[in-house]
Amino acid sequence: MSVVAQYKSQVDEELGRFFTGRELGKDGIELRVISALKEFTMRGGKRVRPLFMILGYWLNSDIDERIIRASISLELMQSYLLIHDDIIDQSPTRRGGPSFHKMWNYEERMNEGISIVAADLADAYSHEILLSNDFPPENLNRAMMAMSETVEMTGIGQLMDITMPLKDKVTLGEVTKVHVMKTAHYTVNGPMKMGAYLSGYPNVGLIDHYGIPLGIAFQIQDDILGMYGDEKTLGKPVTSDFEEGKMTHLILNAFDLASENDIKFIKKFLGKPGISQSDFEEVRNIIKSSGALAKTKELALSYYNKAISSIPELTDDSMKVKELEEMAKRMVDRIN
Amino acid sequence: MSVVAQYKSQVDEELGRFFTGRELGKDGIELRVISALKEFTMRGGKRVRPLFMILGYWLNSDIDERIIRASISLELMQSYLLIHDDIIDQSPTRRGGPSFHKMWNYEERMNEGISIVAADLADAYSHEILLSNDFPPENLNRAMMAMSETVEMTGIGQLMDITMPLKDKVTLGEVTKVHVMKTAHYTVNGPMKMGAYLSGYPNVGLIDHYGIPLGIAFQIQDDILGMYGDEKTLGKPVTSDFEEGKMTHLILNAFDLASENDIKFIKKFLGKPGISQSDFEEVRNIIKSSGALAKTKELALSYYNKAISSIPELTDDSMKVKELEEMAKRMVDRIN
Repeated sequence: MSVVAQYKSQVDEELGRFFTGRELGKDGIELRVISALKEFTMRGGKRVRPLFMILGYWLNSDIDERIIRASISLELMQSYLLIHDDIIDQSPTRRGGPSFHKMWNYEERMNEGISIVAADLADAYSHEILLSNDFPPENLNRAMMAMSETVEMTGIGQLMDITMPLKDKVTLGEVTKVHVMKTAHYTVNGPMKMGAYLSGYPNVGLIDHYGIPLGIAFQIQDDILGMYGDEKTLGKPVTSDFEEGKMTHLILNAFDLASENDIKFIKKFLGKPGISQSDFEEVRNIIKSSGALAKTKELALSYYNKAISSIPELTDDSMKVKELEEMAKRMVDRIN
Repeated sequence: MSVVAQYKSQVDEELGRFFTGRELGKDGIELRVISALKEFTMRGGKRVRPLFMILGYWLNSDIDERIIRASISLELMQSYLLIHDDIIDQSPTRRGGPSFHKMWNYEERMNEGISIVAADLADAYSHEILLSNDFPPENLNRAMMAMSETVEMTGIGQLMDITMPLKDKVTLGEVTKVHVMKTAHYTVNGPMKMGAYLSGYPNVGLIDHYGIPLGIAFQIQDDILGMYGDEKTLGKPVTSDFEEGKMTHLILNAFDLASENDIKFIKKFLGKPGISQSDFEEVRNIIKSSGALAKTKELALSYYNKAISSIPELTDDSMKVKELEEMAKRMVDRIN
């Protein structure tokens, strides 16, 4: 049983309280945007980033109300980035509902314009939330810096990701770099470091040894679920990643291991909308029978093991060691 | 002669240094985006916001290198917001050149996607720049909060602005509110407060009495120049604001003062692209002869005078009083 995961419901409550406070006394388009941000943000449920922030804080301090309040800044940050992502990718769905720019009924450009600015508002809120908690000012500044650096790295990963289709050939190394920038820093490492800075933890740099490999393992696992998971958990059609042409270790390993004919079959459908259920089933079979699925799972496992083996660097408190193991396990089993 | 305006060239140099440092060791899409941000940011020349930040700092401290370095954060913030604005408005030009999303040669959605993320990167840089200066940590916390609150208010103003065309009727009060949110806080008041917080100035709240009316006066003046200025200074066609259907005091006053036929004439072209030079000349004549131009100028002057009369609240140092007057004057004469 994870210690920090028990705070999930408190994180949710705090999020609800934040938005209700912001709605108060507002009207017109401002109120409508805040309410839409509320629905969109509350709809996503796992709160992985706040929990990792609380975990980082716990490395050097008891868990208190301040860190719970501060942790929701990361859910606002997440909404900011997801709203922009979905406009960029023109994705109609997110978190089992419409993407933010599909929640408006004006013409397309107006819907997207409102959404770009709504996301920027969520970003401003995110900074305000973090800053409005009474931590030692030096710690707060370091956490703020870690937050901005995390957003920066996520942005660079996102740029690499969206321009990948412009490349003739994508390497495993490039895919891994995107995972590091777009997932590892953003989902695990940055949040943990922010929490650690807030608590005055002295060895923040060492968190990289845990957070980065764990983040990569998570993303590889996520890509596997994006091909083999169930739609209800994914919150989007299981064919989405494939139809978007997402370059993953799974796909690149299949290109490496499958027969020429089978590769041709995959390429025929990759990155195009409208693959049939039976053709998608065939793609999945190829990836599995070629050994690409097993090889990708092994890779995820090796990153996971790397993260686990770094834990003694971070703490020698047996309860915290156990929690770092537990949270790592939840990440690759998929948070539930 | 303004004291703070003399620091403009140092602000420019600092901006150049920042981007050159960021380009170092980068490659691929990251380098291309940083270089594009550099060109786009350096192209804009007035540096109004950094100068107001330096002015706010000077209220309680000598001007030093730290505040010059910190002040460029506002130019990164400005690029962040302008890039998003131009995508939202689908504006092809900015600062006498292409808008950011027109600096890319892929298909439209890819150009816009890169630009949305590039802007988000500029936002992250903006926070990093401010945080990386060695001010007292409490002061830095307060300045960071003022920055986020400023971006928040700008966003709300922007939402009101872009959804204005959806309204049947727009009032002078609504236009003024957008000016307060989108210009006064963003261009004058927020930057000054940030500088004042960094210097530990004790009466930051009083800056509102100067910054808000001055910002409104500036925006009204800017709207007048948007109809009567010259294209070279504007960096865009003088018909742009009118063709975009921008609701201004000038236009609303004309609706109030002009004859029914003349109003019909204005409405025939307002918010539509492609007005001819002679029709635009006629619109300008109507606004002038109806008395709307004079009334709008008077309004700007009354806000300007309000700002001037607040100066004794802020300082009794005669040199600083003179500088606050000088900067106010430059704002309504148009910074040059």
